[in-house]
Amino acid sequence: MAPAIKINGFPCKANITADDFFFAGLKKAGNTNNPAGSVVTAANVQSFPGVNTLGVSMARIDYAVGGQNPPHTHPRATEIIFVTEGTLEVGFITTANKLFTKTVTVGEVFVFPRGLVHFQQNRGDCPASVIAGFNSQLQGTQAIATTLLAATPPVPTDVLAKAFRVDNEDIDAVKARFK
Amino acid sequence: MAPAIKINGFPCKANITADDFFFAGLKKAGNTNNPAGSVVTAANVQSFPGVNTLGVSMARIDYAVGGQNPPHTHPRATEIIFVTEGTLEVGFITTANKLFTKTVTVGEVFVFPRGLVHFQQNRGDCPASVIAGFNSQLQGTQAIATTLLAATPPVPTDVLAKAFRVDNEDIDAVKARFK
Amino acid sequence: MAPAIKINGFPCKANITADDFFFAGLKKAGNTNNPAGSVVTAANVQSFPGVNTLGVSMARIDYAVGGQNPPHTHPRATEIIFVTEGTLEVGFITTANKLFTKTVTVGEVFVFPRGLVHFQQNRGDCPASVIAGFNSQLQGTQAIATTLLAATPPVPTDVLAKAFRVDNEDIDAVKARFK
Amino acid sequence: MAPAIKINGFPCKANITADDFFFAGLKKAGNTNNPAGSVVTAANVQSFPGVNTLGVSMARIDYAVGGQNPPHTHPRATEIIFVTEGTLEVGFITTANKLFTKTVTVGEVFVFPRGLVHFQQNRGDCPASVIAGFNSQLQGTQAIATTLLAATPPVPTDVLAKAFRVDNEDIDAVKARFK
Amino acid sequence: MAPAIKINGFPCKANITADDFFFAGLKKAGNTNNPAGSVVTAANVQSFPGVNTLGVSMARIDYAVGGQNPPHTHPRATEIIFVTEGTLEVGFITTANKLFTKTVTVGEVFVFPRGLVHFQQNRGDCPASVIAGFNSQLQGTQAIATTLLAATPPVPTDVLAKAFRVDNEDIDAVKARFK
Amino acid sequence: MAPAIKINGFPCKANITADDFFFAGLKKAGNTNNPAGSVVTAANVQSFPGVNTLGVSMARIDYAVGGQNPPHTHPRATEIIFVTEGTLEVGFITTANKLFTKTVTVGEVFVFPRGLVHFQQNRGDCPASVIAGFNSQLQGTQAIATTLLAATPPVPTDVLAKAFRVDNEDIDAVKARFK
Repeated sequence: MAPAIKINGFPCKANITADDFFFAGLKKAGNTNNPAGSVVTAANVQSFPGVNTLGVSMARIDYAVGGQNPPHTHPRATEIIFVTEGTLEVGFITTANKLFTKTVTVGEVFVFPRGLVHFQQNRGDCPASVIAGFNSQLQGTQAIATTLLAATPPVPTDVLAKAFRVDNEDIDAVKARFK
Repeated sequence: MAPAIKINGFPCKANITADDFFFAGLKKAGNTNNPAGSVVTAANVQSFPGVNTLGVSMARIDYAVGGQNPPHTHPRATEIIFVTEGTLEVGFITTANKLFTKTVTVGEVFVFPRGLVHFQQNRGDCPASVIAGFNSQLQGTQAIATTLLAATPPVPTDVLAKAFRVDNEDIDAVKARFK
Repeated sequence: MAPAIKINGFPCKANITADDFFFAGLKKAGNTNNPAGSVVTAANVQSFPGVNTLGVSMARIDYAVGGQNPPHTHPRATEIIFVTEGTLEVGFITTANKLFTKTVTVGEVFVFPRGLVHFQQNRGDCPASVIAGFNSQLQGTQAIATTLLAATPPVPTDVLAKAFRVDNEDIDAVKARFK
Repeated sequence: MAPAIKINGFPCKANITADDFFFAGLKKAGNTNNPAGSVVTAANVQSFPGVNTLGVSMARIDYAVGGQNPPHTHPRATEIIFVTEGTLEVGFITTANKLFTKTVTVGEVFVFPRGLVHFQQNRGDCPASVIAGFNSQLQGTQAIATTLLAATPPVPTDVLAKAFRVDNEDIDAVKARFK
Repeated sequence: MAPAIKINGFPCKANITADDFFFAGLKKAGNTNNPAGSVVTAANVQSFPGVNTLGVSMARIDYAVGGQNPPHTHPRATEIIFVTEGTLEVGFITTANKLFTKTVTVGEVFVFPRGLVHFQQNRGDCPASVIAGFNSQLQGTQAIATTLLAATPPVPTDVLAKAFRVDNEDIDAVKARFK
Repeated sequence: MAPAIKINGFPCKANITADDFFFAGLKKAGNTNNPAGSVVTAANVQSFPGVNTLGVSMARIDYAVGGQNPPHTHPRATEIIFVTEGTLEVGFITTANKLFTKTVTVGEVFVFPRGLVHFQQNRGDCPASVIAGFNSQLQGTQAIATTLLAATPPVPTDVLAKAFRVDNEDIDAVKARFK
């Protein structure tokens, strides 16, 4: 078999159909039964190969009552969200360390500039959901707490202790909650 | 007064707040009482200046029963849509003149590559609506029929007649419907 | 045999010579004996692989008397033309639906911004020819009438009828001329 | 006085000299007498306007014994460092949550991909120093702990508590150390 | 008067017409009565402001018998030429120091990759001319001999002498011919 | 064996470690015992594959007393240098043929814009060294004298003679020194 042509490391299909440009995976709310109380379902090049080279992707984010999409960054994309259900407190922090925060509800839009730490918190009485658009086929995500506390191998405890101005035991205690 | 700093021809605000990154204009369905039976409400740099330089925008498109977003192009952006209401027949044509078409319904996603002619047609029994994401703060739109038949000054009738292989009178008759 | 290295889906040659950067295919006028009365001969990555990754291409366009390069777009390139023979009426339409049109003759230059609908019409008494430069190795082309009326499978007749505000039979009659 | 021409929001000088392309501000070690025990001295467009539009910048980072450049990101640049003095433990975490870490010493080079969380820790017995190159004239920096714990206005305590799986009082206690 | 909006340092016109996208300055052959026996007439953003932000430009190059466009680079563009008159020996040198050279005649195309030293030499019995396309609105040009020997202030003689492995007097003698 | 995935023509490793982002090849001064009296040791994608797609590279340049990095260009990168040892006269020439030159010493920074001819000359009494950062993983280099005088096959002597306004014998004499 001849080797497949690759573009950006992903396969470049020879025989494409309309289904290659279609994705049904965002139809249902994801399972928010997890510590954050939220879940991101992505329609990017990993789940939806047809967006390769097109420079866009989408995601659906669902939030239980009290759930959050915790502080995180996307190294390769700006994110713009449209609230489809519920009410969220959203925010991002600039490189000048200013927080811009807003409460957004159904039908409202908010934008998180490329690479900046941002979050969404469901403070309402019912579940919430957003549709997010990204200007990359593979936005990438670094959830800050997981990145720092649950990497493999672990980020050295004393590096984190010094960064957060706490003791090593404090960091180890928190790390234990991410196992 | 010192001249404002401009970025890409749009103002660069000195004192920004969270409201600059927020847009409420997509909350309500637009008025689809027009010949196409659809309307695009844009959240791009013209209505939502905060996306300037961020490389993203959104739009809400509403479709009456039988309404359509007629064949058009976006010179500067790929578009990815998420259906929020109803059912649509969507499609785009490639530079190899192949049509990729699909019926999409609530919660489904479809992508239209940058610059290619595409359309959405509501063939269902109830109104439809989508949220569209773009990888540009100003996607630009050329609705083909309007571009050809209702430009100012008009595209010469004989140019269009030859292109569509019809008589000048045929073009003039159609142009009259766009006045 | 080891698989060839590919760049952007096109082969990346191991042993290149000056001939890889040379193209003789624009020397002769193309055959304009077709309904449009014009023909585009392209020197892009499909015919001239050496331009791959270089971000440029050229084309020669020949026009019979009365011939036209019908309204079309290039999704991936701005086009700049230099008239080498004859006189042409040229124009493009902006996203604000303004037509910019001009009569250009031998030695004159006109530019068509990326992605916008544009055309050239030979209204003179002799054949015309231009050399076009593009800022892409694969500009792509969508001739509007062909895209709408001769795609495979066909764009639905009623979608076009509604877009152009005509009856289905009108569209079918025009489609028949493109078979 | 005629308004200055601006490029990307920064002034575009009319009369430039060689001094515009020269920067002496990295000659001396910065003062590391601070909680992190390290300091970044930047040669980017804010301190060195001549790099505007050129897409590069540099920084000198000095580390006391035991000092660290705490976990942080650069939204707009990849960073490549060259160690000029001492020995450092360096690392970054990928979007797949893998830590890549290495001990680097004088004359060695390490690269931190754009947008990913990374850090440097001086574990040696003497001060350390690096020269960093960036592929942006304004890399931007978000030090994670400062971003989360010392923003203005503050990131809500309960958002952070939930993200780090600790109590609100724990977060407040740490926030107090960043005042 | 309100300050003009500027884009990339060039004016952004408020009221544009078709003439802004038109340029007649390449119609006539330039005067080749100079030491090189060739002249470049540019249709770039400096002479043809309408190409600003469009990423293309053109030039006409005329060559007397025996004339040359001497070895030079374009820092910001790949160049693709179409020969409109005569015959030329053309070539470029790669970063691996290989010369790719070819004799091209009317109707033939050759491409010079971005940033590489290249030249054209008229070895024929009649004048020659080419139309060049660039993928930048301002390609920039550095003619090597002029850059090295006729800069203001002068490049130090001993720097050049060492580079070319000749004596200072040799360089000074050549510099004198560029005054 | 399955074919390796390639990105930009370079291998895309499946199992990466921290060592892929580490390079020790700049630790030691290179051998400056050559006609230029200087040597460039590169940490780019050819020697340091881990920078592929990251858009940065570094180099160490060492200069003997009286040594020079002769006039050259980088087609794909701006260069920013930091002097680690000694004193250098550095300069670049603009496309308007202006020389910007400066004497820089330990700890000082200078920037050479993308594609422009530039040089460094050690006029001091001791060896010198710089660390250079580039905004490309493969900057490419054309040393002007070598490019013109030592290409394979050779650049025609009469092309160079005309460009430099000297006789063919003068060029041949200089070419002989580059064999």
